[in-house]
Amino acid sequence: MNMLELVEKKRDGIALSKDEIEFFVHGVTDKTIPDYQISAFLMAVLFRGMNDQETADLTMAMSRSGKICDLSNIPGVKVDKHSTGGVGDKVTPILLPIVASFGVPCVKLSGRGLGFTGGTIDKFESVEGFCTSVDPADLKAKIDKCGMLLGGQTGELAPCDKYLYALRDVTGTVPSIPLIASSIMSKKIAGGADAIVLDITCGSGAFMKDEASARELAERMIAIGKLAERPVCCVMTSMQQPLGEMVGNILEMQEVVRTLQGQGRKDVLEVVLTMAAEMLKFTPAGEGHSSAELKSMCLEKINNGEAMEKYRELLLSQGGKIGSDGDPIYVDVPFEVMTVFAEKDGYVSSCDALSVGEASCLLGAGRMQKDDVIDMGAGIQLHKKIGDPVRRGEELFTFFTGTKHPVGDDRIDEALLRMQDAYVISPEKPEVPSEIIDVISP
Amino acid sequence: MNMLELVEKKRDGIALSKDEIEFFVHGVTDKTIPDYQISAFLMAVLFRGMNDQETADLTMAMSRSGKICDLSNIPGVKVDKHSTGGVGDKVTPILLPIVASFGVPCVKLSGRGLGFTGGTIDKFESVEGFCTSVDPADLKAKIDKCGMLLGGQTGELAPCDKYLYALRDVTGTVPSIPLIASSIMSKKIAGGADAIVLDITCGSGAFMKDEASARELAERMIAIGKLAERPVCCVMTSMQQPLGEMVGNILEMQEVVRTLQGQGRKDVLEVVLTMAAEMLKFTPAGEGHSSAELKSMCLEKINNGEAMEKYRELLLSQGGKIGSDGDPIYVDVPFEVMTVFAEKDGYVSSCDALSVGEASCLLGAGRMQKDDVIDMGAGIQLHKKIGDPVRRGEELFTFFTGTKHPVGDDRIDEALLRMQDAYVISPEKPEVPSEIIDVISP
Repeated sequence: MNMLELVEKKRDGIALSKDEIEFFVHGVTDKTIPDYQISAFLMAVLFRGMNDQETADLTMAMSRSGKICDLSNIPGVKVDKHSTGGVGDKVTPILLPIVASFGVPCVKLSGRGLGFTGGTIDKFESVEGFCTSVDPADLKAKIDKCGMLLGGQTGELAPCDKYLYALRDVTGTVPSIPLIASSIMSKKIAGGADAIVLDITCGSGAFMKDEASARELAERMIAIGKLAERPVCCVMTSMQQPLGEMVGNILEMQEVVRTLQGQGRKDVLEVVLTMAAEMLKFTPAGEGHSSAELKSMCLEKINNGEAMEKYRELLLSQGGKIGSDGDPIYVDVPFEVMTVFAEKDGYVSSCDALSVGEASCLLGAGRMQKDDVIDMGAGIQLHKKIGDPVRRGEELFTFFTGTKHPVGDDRIDEALLRMQDAYVISPEKPEVPSEIIDVISP
Repeated sequence: MNMLELVEKKRDGIALSKDEIEFFVHGVTDKTIPDYQISAFLMAVLFRGMNDQETADLTMAMSRSGKICDLSNIPGVKVDKHSTGGVGDKVTPILLPIVASFGVPCVKLSGRGLGFTGGTIDKFESVEGFCTSVDPADLKAKIDKCGMLLGGQTGELAPCDKYLYALRDVTGTVPSIPLIASSIMSKKIAGGADAIVLDITCGSGAFMKDEASARELAERMIAIGKLAERPVCCVMTSMQQPLGEMVGNILEMQEVVRTLQGQGRKDVLEVVLTMAAEMLKFTPAGEGHSSAELKSMCLEKINNGEAMEKYRELLLSQGGKIGSDGDPIYVDVPFEVMTVFAEKDGYVSSCDALSVGEASCLLGAGRMQKDDVIDMGAGIQLHKKIGDPVRRGEELFTFFTGTKHPVGDDRIDEALLRMQDAYVISPEKPEVPSEIIDVISP
């Protein structure tokens, strides 16, 4: 077997065998296959696709390409959660304590943000002292202590995926459904997940721009899950506008606390409760309950304060600091730079997620390049969302930066231009996009 | 402009501008674009194609990527000839002296053989003393002397093409018509050609296996020629069976002499005369004559001995040795290893070019790998060709090797197996393939 043959086969639309895919994954991982052959192969996959079996074989081979997180000594069904990324996506920090409060063990490995989408790890690190690098040997002890763990994805898990992703990023081969699907799934499986609930975001601020491709990804993920014997449920959510009110690291973590204290926005709550219910369905805690019942049970965990208490336990368990008022202490304080007001009456008909994400990134809340340092205090508060009535002179949005990272006027000007693109005010009340587009179960 | 954008554009089926293609060619040549992006781009081109303007832009940019052979100080229209390769293809050594005997200056830059197809440079080097490395500064002197020059392609001409070809070879991106077309044309233009006659071979022993793809290549070459202001004529020839009687280096050069002395096979002569006529058409010598007239005039150059005399001049001009009998002296003597006889009566219905080429290569006449040393004396004599009647016990073919390169029995056994695949004897007389499939003029 040699790589050139595999490239030619895929180029000619012939499905690859499990052995051939394993040969490829081994060769990528041990660096015996040169990059130029890998990238030609990836481009051929982009054009020719991969069937479900090939994608599942690729997923399993990549998941075994490095260390595997063995969670078998932790009792219970380990359900992982993943989002394909979005703007203002603060679902994980709210979801985890809710699910854990049902006694379900939660191990969540997350990534950092790049570009306009935020990363969960960055958000948690905005809490003073919170440490996301977890020694695999400590996993059980942490779970035994508070039932939850939030760790940074390590290069030791699925290193083949890490290498391929870096190459896809620079060779125009990111937007391939089988490559996206196997990349997500291989990390989840290497992370020890028994079942997976996916938040497939869809819209301008997401990776999948339209519903059709989001649905295709969802269906592929479910099919691969079956072949890989890891049941997958996909929740398709709208990312036309940012989720919730805040975009930025500390700002979003503040919204997390408000949501866990029962003062959250309806859109955030709807996504969190839907995802939580689907996660519980995979566990004994969810048995015999409908989705609606489970959502009520989850909401009750917020209302009775259990979820907020669990959230504090999670922060403390990983070194995070909590103030005497019970609120987390953050590494900086968001400082209000300016507020922009509506120039006319009407209804917000657009609050484009991509533009808001880019504006937030310009203010310092995200990384433009891999090694950029994030301003944890930077971000945007959205006073109005799609469908909201607005009167001339009312607050539309507010820019924040941290106190430690002054941002240049040119950056602020550019961010303002993006926000002008983002917000559209129209005379008629528009249709408000539903947060949940669909829930697709296996 | 950056390479990733270009890859994505081509991936999405958007035509590239001249500036973008020049950026690509510069980046490949000065090695600022990494191989993995080049190969992803090549695979995208394979799937998406290139229009004529893109292909012409790529051709011109590649032709200017290194040194350019300036033939402007040589008077007359410089017509180059190129073949897409075949088995037993000894057209160039016969064609050149014929065309030169009309006073048309002939500068031919050729390549070496790799795999089952032979290379013209290798064939000329089978003549004792013949030197194919020509200093560009000597070009004019050589042409003034005998009107002809045969040189090895140097890496200094179109280095971008050389680099891309090596990468295409290992990334499954060879069979792309715009890449093939621009590769051929860029070398011809860098070599100083004013007009080009292409022998597009077609069949098992050629790069283009079927007539449709050969015709597509021909039409693309003509279109690029127009855009590049270098008129191109394409002669489509059959490569179902080897051309002529001999396959191998010295063996073919011996057949060249026999053909120039008027004892050549009809198939070889037909291709040579057709190509020569088309070359002359581009020059004042061909003006006002039909193809049929020009072919007769070329045949007359053989019959009156002028062409053979010119051939001797060419050999001597580049250091080749001629014996007292007027025949070239070769570096070795083909030694008859074995002859295989027909096992039944009938007609030859197949003499598959690819299998014969592979058998000849196994005997040592070609290179399996780039650095293999060729046995100049090795090869195969085909006593029977398609359509020939054959009786049980008649000679079918003979294997030769040189005296300096003994070949192992295992190689001979394997070559015999290929020849068994090559020859088919059937009871009915088959249709004999015409050597010339079509002539496509601009």
